[in-house]
Amino acid sequence: MQNFIFQNPTKLVFGKGQIAKLPELLPRDKKIMVTYGGGSVKNNGVYDQVTTAMKGFDYIEFWGIEPNPTVETIRKAVARGKENNVGFLLAVGGGSVLDGTKLIAAGIASEVDAWDIVKKGYAEEQLPFADVLTVPATGSEMNQGSVITRAETREKYGWFGKYPQFSILDPEVTYSLSDYQVACGLADAYTHVLEQYLTTPGQSRLMDRWAEGVLQSVIEIAPKIKENPKDYDLMADYMLAATLALNDFIRMGIAQDWATHQIGHELTALHGVTHGHSLAIVMPGTLRVLKEQKHDKLLQYGERVFGITEGTEQERVDKAIEKTEEFYRSLGLTTRLSEENIGEETIEIIRNRFNERGVAFGENKNVTGDVAREILISCS
Amino acid sequence: MQNFIFQNPTKLVFGKGQIAKLPELLPRDKKIMVTYGGGSVKNNGVYDQVTTAMKGFDYIEFWGIEPNPTVETIRKAVARGKENNVGFLLAVGGGSVLDGTKLIAAGIASEVDAWDIVKKGYAEEQLPFADVLTVPATGSEMNQGSVITRAETREKYGWFGKYPQFSILDPEVTYSLSDYQVACGLADAYTHVLEQYLTTPGQSRLMDRWAEGVLQSVIEIAPKIKENPKDYDLMADYMLAATLALNDFIRMGIAQDWATHQIGHELTALHGVTHGHSLAIVMPGTLRVLKEQKHDKLLQYGERVFGITEGTEQERVDKAIEKTEEFYRSLGLTTRLSEENIGEETIEIIRNRFNERGVAFGENKNVTGDVAREILISCS
Repeated sequence: MQNFIFQNPTKLVFGKGQIAKLPELLPRDKKIMVTYGGGSVKNNGVYDQVTTAMKGFDYIEFWGIEPNPTVETIRKAVARGKENNVGFLLAVGGGSVLDGTKLIAAGIASEVDAWDIVKKGYAEEQLPFADVLTVPATGSEMNQGSVITRAETREKYGWFGKYPQFSILDPEVTYSLSDYQVACGLADAYTHVLEQYLTTPGQSRLMDRWAEGVLQSVIEIAPKIKENPKDYDLMADYMLAATLALNDFIRMGIAQDWATHQIGHELTALHGVTHGHSLAIVMPGTLRVLKEQKHDKLLQYGERVFGITEGTEQERVDKAIEKTEEFYRSLGLTTRLSEENIGEETIEIIRNRFNERGVAFGENKNVTGDVAREILISCS
Repeated sequence: MQNFIFQNPTKLVFGKGQIAKLPELLPRDKKIMVTYGGGSVKNNGVYDQVTTAMKGFDYIEFWGIEPNPTVETIRKAVARGKENNVGFLLAVGGGSVLDGTKLIAAGIASEVDAWDIVKKGYAEEQLPFADVLTVPATGSEMNQGSVITRAETREKYGWFGKYPQFSILDPEVTYSLSDYQVACGLADAYTHVLEQYLTTPGQSRLMDRWAEGVLQSVIEIAPKIKENPKDYDLMADYMLAATLALNDFIRMGIAQDWATHQIGHELTALHGVTHGHSLAIVMPGTLRVLKEQKHDKLLQYGERVFGITEGTEQERVDKAIEKTEEFYRSLGLTTRLSEENIGEETIEIIRNRFNERGVAFGENKNVTGDVAREILISCS
């Protein structure tokens, strides 16, 4: 096990009717900016709940943070926040609204352009912020990460800042999600775990078990949610799984991968593929190309998560990878680039982008542009 | 799943050589009281590491917090803390030193007698505190709980306050623990999980998986630690398991039991049985007496943790309880009251104590004095 420091201060306020707790949680001595996406919260009752709870608070609203939030939109919000002397932000929406709000919070607290913060990789200063989560997927509600797109150049990068002060998670707000949103959310949560789990073997038995526990839970609930997307306990486990998949709890003292995310971000930046969906396409390819490096962990994963115990080690490894792709497909997602009409040209662009940036990802930092190309070819 | 609020702000500083980080973590503007137990830290190098790291800090030492810390000792420390205008506490030791220090921190911040804080069940005010942990067992390094004994009346109760600001966990400091300390630590961690897991079925698939993950890890490492108690990765997993077994991570939205702990505390208060050992005696009895109420969870536990899939449901439940007692015995602990020369008289005292206090414990609040008696008879 590697040395590590763990501290996650976010207050999770979880359950039915918890949006009504906003008055106890929000500051009364600061101007608040409440941020929203495109308006679905007006149809599912969340906007009304938030507005009712915030009666008497001094706040402004900012609308229009889009899926895969762009720095172009964030700059407008930063300008409005500065004009209005905003001191606290409340994101109401999914991971995109929250990620965008994290950058607004950093932008208002800074004199530099928001894109410079993203490129630097972390925020020096950031206003406090919180959220009412409506789409379980990214884990952004309990972590330091944010991913921002620059529309102008079709670039998409992650950066880090503070944790949310609090996050309100009411599973009932997920009832209005589309099947595709749920599929992408489950794929996102599942892949977050694989990025932290399918790496170096023998680091921590306990972290392995917890990663496997999230995977087993997601596999168990996914088909049941399809049958009954308004079952409270199912949606509560889905919402909790997405948060715990990426809030530092399963990565204490271990190596991490994240190459799939880096490649997936490129597919989103270049073709607008929904984040969770991009991971469902790339992850099986990453495993196929790096199956030797990940051999021992893939064996363990196959046995403990899919019950694969028959065959040679190589057959079991291949089977575990097949079962992974099957799982993504069972959610209703495509898993091949050709199914999304993405061809060789994109693969070359991504290779070149990695090479130009001089980056390499993965637990062994060996996923260069050429390896990314190989992974994408394997997903064709 | 029940509604819940989760927030655990403790900073975990984990790994080799982390005691040297104390200068970055401790406050320089406050008088610090460093608290110790009986002196084992002088033999295992921890005292030297702490003293070296604290050069230049303004601090006093308080020695002599005993196993099952008594309010009588804590009162002396509170008086010394007040005289010296102490503003921060650093516990260096195991769960007892830490639990005692939590009460010192509350006592210095208050005008009432320390025992009144314990009897009230929570502290209104408490100085900030932190710890260097030397015995993985109680989880006190990352939770709000503390258990204190009143020697005069042979009473032992839990109470709640703040979380530690930070906890330094260096697995290397566990190398000098005795076999019995490790056995009690593993039994304590294991039982903490059972108290949160073997309750109402169907609350959260994910919390179940995480609880099972800690149990599986402890079962896997326990025999290996016996063979090699200086294997860093083994001891790191042991240390991490003990912390994660009782830091709120596995009890989100679920019912909890804790009857075994309440009964075990009485055995410790009346006979000085080491805490983890008292749990190894009582838990199998709790399961035997409440096996109908816990039927579904015991079946799941038997299958997932011990691989029990053969026989009628009743046989599988009984087998799961047997395997639990076998596990405690495999650690080298006795599991029967007669083996510790505890007889009927004690059982009657405990029943009467429960009845006089008018308390009932367990996830269904049905472990009254009479049920506690039945449990203890079953452990005779």
